[in-house]
Amino acid sequence: MDDHSSKHRLVDIHTHMYPPEYVDILSSRTTIPLVRTFPSSPDPRLILLESEIPSLERALADPDAPLPGRPLTKHFTSLPAKLAFMARHGIDTSVLSLANPWLDFLPATEEAARTARRINDSFEAMCAAHPGRLFFFGTLPLTAPPPAILESVAHLAALPHCRGVVLGTGGLAGGGMDDPALLPVLRALADAGLPVFLHPHYGLPNAVFGPRSASGEYGHVLPLALGFPMETTVAVARMFLAGVFDAVPRLEMILAHSGGTLPFLAGRLESCVAHDAALVGKNHAGAGAEKGRRRRRTVWEVLREQIYLDAVIYSEVGLKAAAEASGGAERLMFGTDHPFFPPVGEGADAEGEWESVRLNAEAVNKALGDGSEQAAMVMGGNAVRVLRLYDDA
Amino acid sequence: MDDHSSKHRLVDIHTHMYPPEYVDILSSRTTIPLVRTFPSSPDPRLILLESEIPSLERALADPDAPLPGRPLTKHFTSLPAKLAFMARHGIDTSVLSLANPWLDFLPATEEAARTARRINDSFEAMCAAHPGRLFFFGTLPLTAPPPAILESVAHLAALPHCRGVVLGTGGLAGGGMDDPALLPVLRALADAGLPVFLHPHYGLPNAVFGPRSASGEYGHVLPLALGFPMETTVAVARMFLAGVFDAVPRLEMILAHSGGTLPFLAGRLESCVAHDAALVGKNHAGAGAEKGRRRRRTVWEVLREQIYLDAVIYSEVGLKAAAEASGGAERLMFGTDHPFFPPVGEGADAEGEWESVRLNAEAVNKALGDGSEQAAMVMGGNAVRVLRLYDDA
Repeated sequence: MDDHSSKHRLVDIHTHMYPPEYVDILSSRTTIPLVRTFPSSPDPRLILLESEIPSLERALADPDAPLPGRPLTKHFTSLPAKLAFMARHGIDTSVLSLANPWLDFLPATEEAARTARRINDSFEAMCAAHPGRLFFFGTLPLTAPPPAILESVAHLAALPHCRGVVLGTGGLAGGGMDDPALLPVLRALADAGLPVFLHPHYGLPNAVFGPRSASGEYGHVLPLALGFPMETTVAVARMFLAGVFDAVPRLEMILAHSGGTLPFLAGRLESCVAHDAALVGKNHAGAGAEKGRRRRRTVWEVLREQIYLDAVIYSEVGLKAAAEASGGAERLMFGTDHPFFPPVGEGADAEGEWESVRLNAEAVNKALGDGSEQAAMVMGGNAVRVLRLYDDA
Repeated sequence: MDDHSSKHRLVDIHTHMYPPEYVDILSSRTTIPLVRTFPSSPDPRLILLESEIPSLERALADPDAPLPGRPLTKHFTSLPAKLAFMARHGIDTSVLSLANPWLDFLPATEEAARTARRINDSFEAMCAAHPGRLFFFGTLPLTAPPPAILESVAHLAALPHCRGVVLGTGGLAGGGMDDPALLPVLRALADAGLPVFLHPHYGLPNAVFGPRSASGEYGHVLPLALGFPMETTVAVARMFLAGVFDAVPRLEMILAHSGGTLPFLAGRLESCVAHDAALVGKNHAGAGAEKGRRRRRTVWEVLREQIYLDAVIYSEVGLKAAAEASGGAERLMFGTDHPFFPPVGEGADAEGEWESVRLNAEAVNKALGDGSEQAAMVMGGNAVRVLRLYDDA
């Protein structure tokens, strides 16, 4: 790392961990998300998705049925495994985040806030033990009473290695990111200079993917490949229509998976707003309308003023669209999505190079030019600047 | 038109009509889709979407409530209005299609096939009355008994102006485009040289868009801007995973709205397939697996070998991604989506230039170069070639 100037550091902003405190919570649960052990599996199994419930039920009823979910390997839980993964892929710095579904499922009590503090302190300790190599996006106890959520924001703002928060799309009690009750939380985050890393978890209802997906014939492809990105897109479109970006103009959002589908659909979204008789004539769509005089900002303007995208899109085509939609490569930041999408199949070696990482790095270099300044910014320089990772940045 | 060579004709492949026979059917229905008249509205109202049911119910209960759906203007039903729209926008040739939801809602009887024949004959007569200016994508009676569906394919193949069929994503009785029972229909279409124009209608379940969309605060933006494209993407991804493209290698698909989100998500879809332990090791994902020896084709290969995209994406960013994903501008074809998305708001003139048309034409010219050969191909040359519109092509 010594030979890397801060501009040319390789930074991974999309990389998850489940610290031991969190695994204990999942292991004690009886509904998803949960962790279960099976006699035929060396690792416990992590079951996260609604689409995995049928295979969980089959496996509980029949010891010969295929195992549900994914193995909870050390890649999910071990800090040395994370550091080794980083070293193998030349990653100088990782901005860790708790993986989905965070603390969304906790009962609506003060206890949720104490759990969040325990987990955030655990992330802070991991980062402090590896100075300059690790930062993190904190976790909010969104089921706790609102004052406790705001206290969590203040707690995170005071932790030296916290650089934002990771949020799902559920908002408070499932009200979504366009729920007016969430605005005070978003304002507190904006005031604290903590960007929101928006990440999907709930996907789309299983019925959308049809019976052959439900029976397992298509693996988990459809919920992950299509449900996740659409969930993110819907969440941010709802924020746009509700006027959240106008109501909290200093709010900064980092969208997982290059914005879901937003770069591709921004034109259609903008056109649908401009052609909807129920919306045209309002200065702002939705909640922003009462603000009055200013003209409505377009989807494109919001993309280029308050939104950053990670570069987890697995293709040159997608990466180019993401860069162009967000006004240039200066709003894109490399990520790996580790520990998800490990190598699979015959001869797969989770301790070797990960194809999923290579695909995303290659997309950046192909789309922006191998060795170009723009590619270097996406691979790390932007994260250093946007997330203020180093004093010398 | 005389001064346009077939290569430089302006062709609109995404343009809908409801002939009078179809409006009669909608007017007689009591559930969506339906047409209703209201004392306060000069035009009947067309109510198509699940998301429009609450406003329909409010309007039926309260004469002062906002009107549901959209006005069923002459743009939806009148051939002279279509021809005037074409003339105003310099469109030489239109490939008409019945708008959603086609005949998906008809009872499962032989009668559905007779209805389809009546409507297809009506389209053929319209086209025959304006030689060289009009062609059409036919409609299949997908609720009819399978032999009657195959007879419909044969009937369409014999109509001189039919150039394919428009299909929703429901398949037979809602089984989807990946239903093995649909394969004989797809094979018959491929054998007859009739491409499938795949078009969304069902969108996503309303719950996905949240309470403020359901209450009407966001107009119809979310179902149309996001639900429609995701529906198309899911349908074609299900076909891919089921091995339909391998099972019917001569099948040609034209995807509405530039493939929904497929160009942007193709990389993620391909990566999810390649990283799914349940799929890796099969030569083909899903139903194609039994075919054995050949390696699995990637999403990218299928996009470039069996899929065409319309250019209805309303942005330069999206258009570029669509062109690149499908291997170049030769697989893209201009469309307007007329009569949907007319001008709205103060001073709007449905008899003037339509912004929605201008946005799509501008996207082609910006992305591919104003006056370039590539832009000319997308604006018409490709449709002339792919759909064999003229003998001199």
